[in-house]
Amino acid sequence: MDVRQLFGTNVRRLRLEKGLSQEEFGFVAGIDRTYVSGVERGLRNPTIVLAEKFAQGLGVEVDELLRRPAKGA
Amino acid sequence: MDVRQLFGTNVRRLRLEKGLSQEEFGFVAGIDRTYVSGVERGLRNPTIVLAEKFAQGLGVEVDELLRRPAKGA
Repeated sequence: MDVRQLFGTNVRRLRLEKGLSQEEFGFVAGIDRTYVSGVERGLRNPTIVLAEKFAQGLGVEVDELLRRPAKGA
Repeated sequence: MDVRQLFGTNVRRLRLEKGLSQEEFGFVAGIDRTYVSGVERGLRNPTIVLAEKFAQGLGVEVDELLRRPAKGA
């Protein structure tokens, strides 16, 4: 899986786990909703500083957003 | 620790563990040596695609380069 898709998939999963819409998450994290949408679809290539901002908005460590799912998960 | 310093510290540690100079690592990973130097000093803000390139050059998963050291480590 391409790293942009990996990041987007993890952001989306964690956002939904927290019951946040893209709009709510964007507001909380201070990130434009349309950018959140593009990231979740694997279309964006954020810098590590912006990746950290996503992580802070989701209340996780930034490395979790780039972790590959365990084989067979 | 700022995420750029975190990334740079992890890259440097792993590069030295593999006994590579910045020049050798840059050649192996296909990344300009001066950019490697800037990243290791926490002065650069690479995208996640470039972070993945660093990880591939070091033979690790990209999330390892953004992992914070365990408390007290």
